Amino acid sequence: MDSVTDIDAELPAHIEHALDEYLCRAREPINHVAPFTGALEALRTFVLGGGKRIRPTFAWWAWRGAGGDARGDRADGALQAVAALELIQACALIHDDVMDDSDSRRGAPTVHVAFADTHAQHRWHGSPARFGLAAAVLIGDVALAWADDMFATADLPEQARAAARPAWQAMRTEVLAGQYLDVHNQAACEASPEAALRVNELKTAAYTVKRPLHIGAALAGADAALIDALLSFGNDIGIAFQLRDDLLGLLGDPEVTGKPAGDDLREGKRTLLVAVGLEHARQQSKQAAGRAISEAVTEDAPTDEQVERAVDALSEVGAVDTVERRITQLTGTALESLRRAALAEPASAKLTELAHAATSRSR
Amino acid sequence: MDSVTDIDAELPAHIEHALDEYLCRAREPINHVAPFTGALEALRTFVLGGGKRIRPTFAWWAWRGAGGDARGDRADGALQAVAALELIQACALIHDDVMDDSDSRRGAPTVHVAFADTHAQHRWHGSPARFGLAAAVLIGDVALAWADDMFATADLPEQARAAARPAWQAMRTEVLAGQYLDVHNQAACEASPEAALRVNELKTAAYTVKRPLHIGAALAGADAALIDALLSFGNDIGIAFQLRDDLLGLLGDPEVTGKPAGDDLREGKRTLLVAVGLEHARQQSKQAAGRAISEAVTEDAPTDEQVERAVDALSEVGAVDTVERRITQLTGTALESLRRAALAEPASAKLTELAHAATSRSR
Repeated sequence: MDSVTDIDAELPAHIEHALDEYLCRAREPINHVAPFTGALEALRTFVLGGGKRIRPTFAWWAWRGAGGDARGDRADGALQAVAALELIQACALIHDDVMDDSDSRRGAPTVHVAFADTHAQHRWHGSPARFGLAAAVLIGDVALAWADDMFATADLPEQARAAARPAWQAMRTEVLAGQYLDVHNQAACEASPEAALRVNELKTAAYTVKRPLHIGAALAGADAALIDALLSFGNDIGIAFQLRDDLLGLLGDPEVTGKPAGDDLREGKRTLLVAVGLEHARQQSKQAAGRAISEAVTEDAPTDEQVERAVDALSEVGAVDTVERRITQLTGTALESLRRAALAEPASAKLTELAHAATSRSR
Repeated sequence: MDSVTDIDAELPAHIEHALDEYLCRAREPINHVAPFTGALEALRTFVLGGGKRIRPTFAWWAWRGAGGDARGDRADGALQAVAALELIQACALIHDDVMDDSDSRRGAPTVHVAFADTHAQHRWHGSPARFGLAAAVLIGDVALAWADDMFATADLPEQARAAARPAWQAMRTEVLAGQYLDVHNQAACEASPEAALRVNELKTAAYTVKRPLHIGAALAGADAALIDALLSFGNDIGIAFQLRDDLLGLLGDPEVTGKPAGDDLREGKRTLLVAVGLEHARQQSKQAAGRAISEAVTEDAPTDEQVERAVDALSEVGAVDTVERRITQLTGTALESLRRAALAEPASAKLTELAHAATSRSR
């Protein structure tokens, strides 16, 4: 896949190719160090094994919309820089799975579970779970460190990279802050809509949409007005994206989402939907509904009946409607900001398409 | 502490000041996000709370020795870049403590234990240990990401930073590879001297001495010959440094080292000293001695008698003498390499002093 091929036309394949190539190059100096190579192979499998490449996709179209090339050296450099976002995401997911002690991801064992299994199969010394944890923490760290290297060594004019650096830095701090807040709010039973919105702003809006757009546009030398418009677009789409996720986690068709309906409640996730539900119940003095929602998210293992009652309660108090209306409203303001940005085509059409896909998807 | 003060004269204080200043600046954009501020404050306390600043110290003297300024803007920039090594070290220690499930570090609770305590004190929801683990993983991630930011935003000519980047990248990959190998060897009971030496080369020699020297010298624009000489010096001193550590962990005075003698054996550490001991026992057909060493490192909780027997066995088979001789030999070749580097003073004298301190210390 050389640089003459049109990146625009097959973006995910190009992103994956850039990742594969970078991971191969990065491990060259350390390839003699078996068994570390096994850990690096696990990282490669994880990174190439799935995901919608949503962050580099937003970043790429911002690059293109701000006048960045679709082919040639600069395009390859920009592609490498935005593909690095997938290594950040690999770290976030691998460490998240450790923190949640999740067993599977994308239909395969999580990294810590896979390494614990290897330990057990070989009847190694010590605890398999502890070995799995150590391997996953370290593999996530490699992904985080290499993300920076991939961004820092992309073949781009130094001025372009310097322009995008503040966005790159903010993105990493914001996702870690969002993760921390999420863990903290769940522990501290912090139930306000403000707290849920803050997590949503950091974890989804900033990390998944705003900063990728910011990075792509800054790499192409966008001015402050264009970046502002893109940040407004990204913020609104990002929040709407998460709200759609909340609704799918509650009411989505298990056949389509791959998760049983109400799964977020079962996991005790403090979504904005839940916070709005609790607030509505209080305002409407619907104590039974409030209790039903509250119970489902605080019980360690709520029964199916408890989850069902909470799902019904969230509809009854109007939280589902409120959130649907908010998605429509946010999509509207986002598209206004996008028009204001007046991006070059095909970027404007592509970002419009992404906005609709993110906010009205069924999985 | 402005840049007119002589950095040479009070290096650790200047390194700590640079760290404090950077951590303060980095958190500014996210300061409104309580309770994440609490996590950042824990990172600051950890970073400023101790440590010998050994990595930035080696890097600084390489910078000076290769012609870097002792004061002024460039000196401040170099100081920031080398102080960033302490944030890598913070990540390594915080994540290491999670992986080993250690309770205390530098006389204080480890980060994951402190956050678990906070959780328990507030009687929050869920498991305190799980919350502590999540907080420590995320705080380590912040340190790793911010280390890069601190290095990348140091006020230095872009050419200088670009020259040091390969060393910066190698250092991060090497420390993670070394940690992984260490965990792996311990699990797989990998007992060869070659395996122990490989961990030593990556975790101590490369990460603690070679790459810091490489970074400092490259920032000052050192040529390949000078860098080669420093890398030889660093490799030998780094390995000798770890061997001294192995001996102190075995025979050190508990009053001075702060750890009971034989503690490394008790923790099952696969040091080069242990590997040499096992090899010597085999070569000399001293089966009882070999068994004593082997038992102490593989038992989950060896008795004091078992540890004592292993300590005696390591002396008996001559492993202690072999390692002492190796330290002397490595220090000699290291100092030859240093002379070959022909550094400007006071750097040459300082590095000679550091070499002696690292290899003949009593703690």
